[in-house]
Amino acid sequence: MVTVDLNSDLGESFGRYRIGKDEQVIKTVTSVNIACGFHAGDPDVMAKTVAEAEAAEIGIGAHPGFHDLQDFGRRFIDIPAEEVQHLISYQVGALQGFTKNHRLHHVKPHGALYNAAARNHELAVAVCRGIQKVDSNLPLYGLAHSELITAAKEVGLPYAQEVYGDRNYLPDGSLVPRSQPNAVITDPEKIAKRTLNMIKDQAVTAIDGSRVSLITDTICVHGDNEEALAIVRRLSTTLKTAGIGLKPF
Amino acid sequence: MVTVDLNSDLGESFGRYRIGKDEQVIKTVTSVNIACGFHAGDPDVMAKTVAEAEAAEIGIGAHPGFHDLQDFGRRFIDIPAEEVQHLISYQVGALQGFTKNHRLHHVKPHGALYNAAARNHELAVAVCRGIQKVDSNLPLYGLAHSELITAAKEVGLPYAQEVYGDRNYLPDGSLVPRSQPNAVITDPEKIAKRTLNMIKDQAVTAIDGSRVSLITDTICVHGDNEEALAIVRRLSTTLKTAGIGLKPF
Amino acid sequence: MVTVDLNSDLGESFGRYRIGKDEQVIKTVTSVNIACGFHAGDPDVMAKTVAEAEAAEIGIGAHPGFHDLQDFGRRFIDIPAEEVQHLISYQVGALQGFTKNHRLHHVKPHGALYNAAARNHELAVAVCRGIQKVDSNLPLYGLAHSELITAAKEVGLPYAQEVYGDRNYLPDGSLVPRSQPNAVITDPEKIAKRTLNMIKDQAVTAIDGSRVSLITDTICVHGDNEEALAIVRRLSTTLKTAGIGLKPF
Amino acid sequence: MVTVDLNSDLGESFGRYRIGKDEQVIKTVTSVNIACGFHAGDPDVMAKTVAEAEAAEIGIGAHPGFHDLQDFGRRFIDIPAEEVQHLISYQVGALQGFTKNHRLHHVKPHGALYNAAARNHELAVAVCRGIQKVDSNLPLYGLAHSELITAAKEVGLPYAQEVYGDRNYLPDGSLVPRSQPNAVITDPEKIAKRTLNMIKDQAVTAIDGSRVSLITDTICVHGDNEEALAIVRRLSTTLKTAGIGLKPF
Repeated sequence: MVTVDLNSDLGESFGRYRIGKDEQVIKTVTSVNIACGFHAGDPDVMAKTVAEAEAAEIGIGAHPGFHDLQDFGRRFIDIPAEEVQHLISYQVGALQGFTKNHRLHHVKPHGALYNAAARNHELAVAVCRGIQKVDSNLPLYGLAHSELITAAKEVGLPYAQEVYGDRNYLPDGSLVPRSQPNAVITDPEKIAKRTLNMIKDQAVTAIDGSRVSLITDTICVHGDNEEALAIVRRLSTTLKTAGIGLKPF
Repeated sequence: MVTVDLNSDLGESFGRYRIGKDEQVIKTVTSVNIACGFHAGDPDVMAKTVAEAEAAEIGIGAHPGFHDLQDFGRRFIDIPAEEVQHLISYQVGALQGFTKNHRLHHVKPHGALYNAAARNHELAVAVCRGIQKVDSNLPLYGLAHSELITAAKEVGLPYAQEVYGDRNYLPDGSLVPRSQPNAVITDPEKIAKRTLNMIKDQAVTAIDGSRVSLITDTICVHGDNEEALAIVRRLSTTLKTAGIGLKPF
Repeated sequence: MVTVDLNSDLGESFGRYRIGKDEQVIKTVTSVNIACGFHAGDPDVMAKTVAEAEAAEIGIGAHPGFHDLQDFGRRFIDIPAEEVQHLISYQVGALQGFTKNHRLHHVKPHGALYNAAARNHELAVAVCRGIQKVDSNLPLYGLAHSELITAAKEVGLPYAQEVYGDRNYLPDGSLVPRSQPNAVITDPEKIAKRTLNMIKDQAVTAIDGSRVSLITDTICVHGDNEEALAIVRRLSTTLKTAGIGLKPF
Repeated sequence: MVTVDLNSDLGESFGRYRIGKDEQVIKTVTSVNIACGFHAGDPDVMAKTVAEAEAAEIGIGAHPGFHDLQDFGRRFIDIPAEEVQHLISYQVGALQGFTKNHRLHHVKPHGALYNAAARNHELAVAVCRGIQKVDSNLPLYGLAHSELITAAKEVGLPYAQEVYGDRNYLPDGSLVPRSQPNAVITDPEKIAKRTLNMIKDQAVTAIDGSRVSLITDTICVHGDNEEALAIVRRLSTTLKTAGIGLKPF
């Protein structure tokens, strides 16, 4: 049976500040990316979130980002590749400290760090080496066909290619930036069908009508609000109906 | 042969800010306590310091503290025991992320956290549980005969009893607070003899003349300046001359 | 006409994290205490909040706290009085930077800092001196009859005595700690009547039935949720009906 | 008499971490730029540094930077212009809180923020508006002929044009980046003569031999080490001998 992984960010609260519908997200996805205290999350939130994800028996991933709580890791910070490597090791190690058996399922960089490393080879290699330092068998989740995947192959790190069913693609396989009007797709039905086709065709139709080859190991979904959860539920149903199994990568 | 461990703090620089004579400390001790980014250190300093300590083949310990860079972890922060447990797991996991084979040698809490947990049973148990979450075989370095040692026994965590050759003791086995005039001993000769006697007698003479039983698994030394390094060198020579081996706990 | 001030905390969001019903709070109170970035708030939230409060023509106060975003300034941090003085000046100056005409209406310390300074004379003096450094005519809002008021008188700083209509009092004029079951009163009707009596009688009945003299310059109210807002509206109506004017201190 | 201002950074220590020869710098310059806690400095360092500079009767400037203690404000952080405006107001207000009479002499942005705003008009305007919000008469120190000066003229903020005697210039009036080998001049004699000529000629010879017009209101000097202090002393002597007075802008 063809299977695919649905991943979502989790554990993005901080201290008294609450964000995200974590309880419901946990029930709808097969793996989660848990914030590590640099762009969101704190040691207490991390301990609680890891315990809840372990109870749900889903894949527990680290979600390291730039050190930028105020902007939620969404702003690019121009630091050298070596510093990127170290902040990845630090955050991945920290989250691993809260897991049973001291093992994680994967690592997915967050926000501006994910986007920068998807385009910049040197940063992508730094991300991979930062993960390798902690555990050389720990898979990277990276944008399909991006520098993150190239770098993982290069350094010999396992990886999962990630696609976005709710985002339009440029002809080079990158995502249409959120600053552009047609970046995001919001209709649950359309997202579900589009994602199913991405899996079946191993390709997506870019914004200019061209066909971009893509391998779908894992699908990024969201759980910030009810609309986002409705999209995940619809997607989940559509995939299962089409005979595609949902399980961690 | 009787052996003892000499431990010192290391890796307390932060960004462009430099503190400590790390290169020389590494040559004079048998194990080190590396700051984990909460009261001192940052991911870059941690990566560099761990690599240097590994090259010197000395015991690499995590040195977690309160989240307090401005006061270097020296001020007490009144947080619940559960938060203490989590900040320990976070910092220990983070430092472990930089080690070869993903293994540490020990954990020694820092500053106000060490002092508070030495006196407060609930905090001491939280420290031990925070370590256990990361690695149940990872020894705690704690003040000899303090609540830290009691807690380690209680939860089944390995531990090393730590003594201070340059500090005077109260009759209950705690250290004379630094706020008091006779807290610290500065004469290298006196410190060396006193420490040798602590090992041989398994006891120390307290400030009131009474005898306090103490087991010496590891001796805390410092490397902040040339005076401190001179003390370590003298201590090292005195112990070796007396036939006591120096090696990691 | 007898008048009284209703004050509430405001601007406690941080980055993407949102807390509080600021829009509604602004319409119900006569002065606000705006977080200054140490325990809550950030420069963007502060700029926006000051602008909104200025548009509503209510009294704009600084709300400095311990540097503790994760615990929202609720945990005591044991720092010397001199450091308290400086963190007050820093935060008050920072908020003042966002005001029209570079003037504030008052300063009210937050959380653990408020509570500690209400009991500890040295800290209370440090708070007052920290305010004085920025503007010697800037009034302190402090717990009625507490060390904060004593210190303000001592150093010659203007002050407003603050009471809590929703809290029970101990015979010495301090608040019953929140850790005790009868600390908080939740019935809007009861709170309104009780507060009206505090103003008229210049006294409150303590938890043991004894009478404690209190001067009511300003009343602390909350705007975290609908229940809190309902309490403020009821209180407001009750006071106006009794002929008491509501305006900034 | 022609006069010129010598400015230097000051107060860059943080907590227990010490940087800079502040005592000697204060004796050699006519105005200082004091770090405001975001890239260096803390409330205690700020209070102490302002008091020392006031005692020396030199011009006290705020030195706001990106929120980046680990990289000392040297890395570019890609935040919107509005956030830049607010972080300027916050830091300028905070430092002003420590001054006598609540007045500053000038504001000079730090590091990556200075460099980015010197090139980017939108950021430069944001810096100026951030200062204006606190005090519309407070001069900006900005790189001569850069976007900072253009923006100050545009929004009506007073300004001083700043030159670097120890840096080579590009034909467009910008500094040769430090990443290039010939960016910095280190010979004290050469720096002193070169700076004197910049003042007399109202121009500098760029790296390609072309002449760039420059107005010299203030000269940036350094006090990190003995070499830097020797340069300032030589410069000072050369200028005085040539009949140029040294005093704050």
